[in-house]
Amino acid sequence: MPSSGFSGTLSGPKVEVAIDMGNPLLNVTVDGFLKIGAVAATRVAAEEAYHAVKKGSVSSHNFEHTLKKMCKEGAYWGTVAGVYVGAEYGVERIRGRRDWKNAMIGGVVTGAVISAATSKDKDRIVVDAITGGAIATAAEFLNYLI
Amino acid sequence: MPSSGFSGTLSGPKVEVAIDMGNPLLNVTVDGFLKIGAVAATRVAAEEAYHAVKKGSVSSHNFEHTLKKMCKEGAYWGTVAGVYVGAEYGVERIRGRRDWKNAMIGGVVTGAVISAATSKDKDRIVVDAITGGAIATAAEFLNYLI
Repeated sequence: MPSSGFSGTLSGPKVEVAIDMGNPLLNVTVDGFLKIGAVAATRVAAEEAYHAVKKGSVSSHNFEHTLKKMCKEGAYWGTVAGVYVGAEYGVERIRGRRDWKNAMIGGVVTGAVISAATSKDKDRIVVDAITGGAIATAAEFLNYLI
Repeated sequence: MPSSGFSGTLSGPKVEVAIDMGNPLLNVTVDGFLKIGAVAATRVAAEEAYHAVKKGSVSSHNFEHTLKKMCKEGAYWGTVAGVYVGAEYGVERIRGRRDWKNAMIGGVVTGAVISAATSKDKDRIVVDAITGGAIATAAEFLNYLI
């Protein structure tokens, strides 16, 4: 009887996968998607592991649920990161400068794109764009602080 | 009749306030609080301005509400940033190295501290700590990408 299996290795957030898409914009976008998606998947794995340890049982149903959640959340975080990295890279090319304004514009674009993809409310898209810009600016500032 | 007024200047997120507390850990913490607090306050100001423009009216009640919200949200983001910067700085001093693990540990500490301050649920504190670590790691990775 042929058996189908799934084997995966998760070596923590230190993922080093380099895929050359032949275009620098695509490269950074794919890179962002993979790296941040891996971080999100690891987060779900850690959270589910905590719940499993606390309950004291690991069933196959739990594992399937965890795997699905890892893929879902990894894809979501990865998409956000890919859009952000792509937007910031594009802004940097257009503006020809590297400063915190790139991060802000990238965050605004990301907030608007992700919000427009999941919601039809125009007000919410604007608010999410503003919030995205603020989060990206804050992250950029923190980066200079440390 | 004497009149009381309020005049403020908001020059965007380019705030340069340096307060020397005589201790590098306190310095980065206060710096993080002020800078990220200013970003959050700007975010609220932008969001409220959008709502006011859309409604077509700016009343004094609105302004008071905006100011209160700016202080509240600024203090919250500032606290999160202060705890994070302080934690990452401390971890860096203890480990003697600068890599993404500092950000991860700083994020875990920040998630746990902020969660413990606002919630009594032990499970939620653990999950928030894991999420904090994941967000900080993701931000650190994005930082290397661009």
